[in-house]
Amino acid sequence: MSDPCTLLIFGSTGNLASHKLLPALYHIDAAERLNPASRILGFGRRAWSDDEWRDQVRSTLAERLPGRLDEGVLARLLARLAFVEGDLEQPEGYRRLAERLRAEEGLPENLMSYLAVAPRHYGPIVDQLAAHGLHAQDVGWSRLVVEKPFGFDLESASLLDQRLHRWFTEDQIFRIDHYLGKSTVQNILVFRFANLLLEPLWNRNYIDHVQISHAESRGIEERAGFYDGVGALRDMIQSHLLQMLTLVAMEPPPSLDAEALRDEKVKVLRSIRPIPREAVHAHAFRAQYGPGRVDDTKLSGYRGESGVAHDSTTETYAALKLYIDNWRWRNVPFYLRTGKRLGRTNSLIAIRFKHPPQQLFQSTAIEQLKPNWLLLNIQPNECMRLEIQVKEPGLEMRAQTERLDASSCMLPPEQIDAYEALILDVIAGEHTHFLRYDEVDWAWRVVDPILKLWATERDFIPPYPAGSWGPPEANRLFDREDQDWRNGLDQ
Amino acid sequence: MSDPCTLLIFGSTGNLASHKLLPALYHIDAAERLNPASRILGFGRRAWSDDEWRDQVRSTLAERLPGRLDEGVLARLLARLAFVEGDLEQPEGYRRLAERLRAEEGLPENLMSYLAVAPRHYGPIVDQLAAHGLHAQDVGWSRLVVEKPFGFDLESASLLDQRLHRWFTEDQIFRIDHYLGKSTVQNILVFRFANLLLEPLWNRNYIDHVQISHAESRGIEERAGFYDGVGALRDMIQSHLLQMLTLVAMEPPPSLDAEALRDEKVKVLRSIRPIPREAVHAHAFRAQYGPGRVDDTKLSGYRGESGVAHDSTTETYAALKLYIDNWRWRNVPFYLRTGKRLGRTNSLIAIRFKHPPQQLFQSTAIEQLKPNWLLLNIQPNECMRLEIQVKEPGLEMRAQTERLDASSCMLPPEQIDAYEALILDVIAGEHTHFLRYDEVDWAWRVVDPILKLWATERDFIPPYPAGSWGPPEANRLFDREDQDWRNGLDQ
Repeated sequence: MSDPCTLLIFGSTGNLASHKLLPALYHIDAAERLNPASRILGFGRRAWSDDEWRDQVRSTLAERLPGRLDEGVLARLLARLAFVEGDLEQPEGYRRLAERLRAEEGLPENLMSYLAVAPRHYGPIVDQLAAHGLHAQDVGWSRLVVEKPFGFDLESASLLDQRLHRWFTEDQIFRIDHYLGKSTVQNILVFRFANLLLEPLWNRNYIDHVQISHAESRGIEERAGFYDGVGALRDMIQSHLLQMLTLVAMEPPPSLDAEALRDEKVKVLRSIRPIPREAVHAHAFRAQYGPGRVDDTKLSGYRGESGVAHDSTTETYAALKLYIDNWRWRNVPFYLRTGKRLGRTNSLIAIRFKHPPQQLFQSTAIEQLKPNWLLLNIQPNECMRLEIQVKEPGLEMRAQTERLDASSCMLPPEQIDAYEALILDVIAGEHTHFLRYDEVDWAWRVVDPILKLWATERDFIPPYPAGSWGPPEANRLFDREDQDWRNGLDQ
Repeated sequence: MSDPCTLLIFGSTGNLASHKLLPALYHIDAAERLNPASRILGFGRRAWSDDEWRDQVRSTLAERLPGRLDEGVLARLLARLAFVEGDLEQPEGYRRLAERLRAEEGLPENLMSYLAVAPRHYGPIVDQLAAHGLHAQDVGWSRLVVEKPFGFDLESASLLDQRLHRWFTEDQIFRIDHYLGKSTVQNILVFRFANLLLEPLWNRNYIDHVQISHAESRGIEERAGFYDGVGALRDMIQSHLLQMLTLVAMEPPPSLDAEALRDEKVKVLRSIRPIPREAVHAHAFRAQYGPGRVDDTKLSGYRGESGVAHDSTTETYAALKLYIDNWRWRNVPFYLRTGKRLGRTNSLIAIRFKHPPQQLFQSTAIEQLKPNWLLLNIQPNECMRLEIQVKEPGLEMRAQTERLDASSCMLPPEQIDAYEALILDVIAGEHTHFLRYDEVDWAWRVVDPILKLWATERDFIPPYPAGSWGPPEANRLFDREDQDWRNGLDQ
């Protein structure tokens, strides 16, 4: 059972709150992991009473979790709700909020302020919270939850961080990368460090290269306002994919406590070989989806999406080759790739091992041995697969690829959302699965030279047909002919 | 397509010929891998014409391969058959045989003499073959196939070998251990040397111990005449299990040719730490099945089986702990175990890895991490499984054992019999999957001290109930409390 707390949601009618936070809170409450005394305060511009917000939340949850709502749990959750009207940029609302927090009986003193709003509001919100003393931890704790994107580049991230730190200590700030709340992503740690098998193989002696890839079949849908001018490199690679890279590449930490773990992650980010401006094109590739066709459905290109400038050169596809200059990884390429409107929605970590040093089966029928692969599929379904070579059944001494699959590969995608775990972590004051600022900072340093160069090249961006796997030119990042993208467990 | 040859079967009406050789020859012929000119000569005491033997073989095959016989293939196979009447111990039969081989048109000059008879006949047969020049390789080749048991102990094996070598060179002799013809056993080589993943882990730094186990649910059935006085150590461990041990433990050979491979296998056998007489009880354990009950069926004990002496101390269960004194395996125990009337019929190589050096998950809910296991199931079904630790799905950071299974684990037991591959190997002159004499010799040296001591201890042998997994006292061979037998993939 978690501590009692008052959860304050800024942006309570936005996408994040409706799609993620409220369903997660429902599930946590259903699992009886929310303290009976905990309350949830929405803050927003609507002139809603508490009951009107409750009605709103009821219909949001009915829509998000159709047929899966328990009326008892729902009633319990709705009873926790309250609403405070206010404009994020104006002081009045914050005054009403502070007043209600002070005056109302039964609102726990522990305060979690969840900024489910655009980053431009972060500054005004923390200033106003501080103006009313809501950042202080005299009685209960006060914690601030912010979502990515954390800044727009290295410099803006740093300015934003200074603004938060004017009032909040690092210990009070929880920067969410929701990938870190995914069970499969957390599993990378268990998998690497609870098994003896992997660590001896986990280095430059045995690993040919690593691919970390997040593909989406969706286009940008209604998100042009956010996405255009931001692009795939900022949206996915600077955050989620670099985070996965740190988990795959880091040294075993002395313990799993938040500082020890994040120290190791930062070490990885600091060890990434900087990409000088003149090497950007050798290490990074961008593209943008054009019109295409999937299953007889005509898809428009990115520039045809509503809200996108007709000459936008925002990338919807980005691929990177990175090197980690340390003893373990020197000269092992890490390929990061993400794209929208690709062939399928899939997140995959694929580790390709080197060939055995000797081709023992050359004189027999085994001519072209395939290398070993370790595949960790993150979504849509969680699956761990090892591809090995075994003898073909029958009389001949021939090898064939055999897949060792975890039983979880058969299961439907997991139902537990990352946000459930993360909200409980904030209440517990557990920072392990949140970003420390130096992680954000070093991740920006990795991509900043690329962003800077791309920003100057606004005449042309290579296109790829919507529904394809991106442009073939992206393969130029590979060092050898026999290397290629894995587009999923079976491809 | 194989060379044309005349396959001469001594013991053509015996168990081995009916159960194994003739079905194997049928399958080889069906696969069009037997040269159209090849012929099969049976040799035995019955006064059969060729046609009478054909009728005999037809009914044998109909019984062994019910519903699976193709009449066309059967007709082709039967047309290859001929029969020569003769007593193994008398010269007349051999004279008729030699005469027929010389006189009859269309009998290929390449001669494979398959001794599917008790070892006491090996000497007389080779002497007689030689008396008629049938060992000579002037025109075609002449090859001798002998079955285990090859001798009864170190000394008798050596005498037998000298007898064969009086007439046949090592190159002409094919000593069968049919386990080496099994696809799964051959797969150990492909698995170890066609994958980069295993070799770095395959040593004393990472492996806790190795178990090689062959369990049978059957008792000795009608084989008391052969089995009593021989026992499990000679019947299974000296041959099959030690062979599997060599494949698991050997260094990568420079190539897979027969000499290179067998050189490495012999190196393993020579490196096994000799067991001094006073250490036999610490390294070896024997037992004999008593009466028991399986699924309401009452089973008699070994001493109650027909043909077994009422005070027999022949072991039907034997377990051994061996050490291989080389750089790779020093102080890693190899446990070999076999038994009749055990809980299930199963052959398994189980490799247990050590624990990770650090318990990272101690402060979380992961308390007792299980070690990694690699399981290679040989029979009844071929299956490769890796047991690893992964994060339990859900909110908690708990580990659970996950199995990575090869897809073959789902398949029914393979249909290809070891003898098919081995017969084709003899015709091809390929020695890789046959025993060189020094392998036999060193394998006897491993078990000889145990046999010698057990032979003097004829008062008592520990019993175990038929249908159990052997006596619990066998666990005394393990070094630690947390070690135990794996009785199959799931146990």
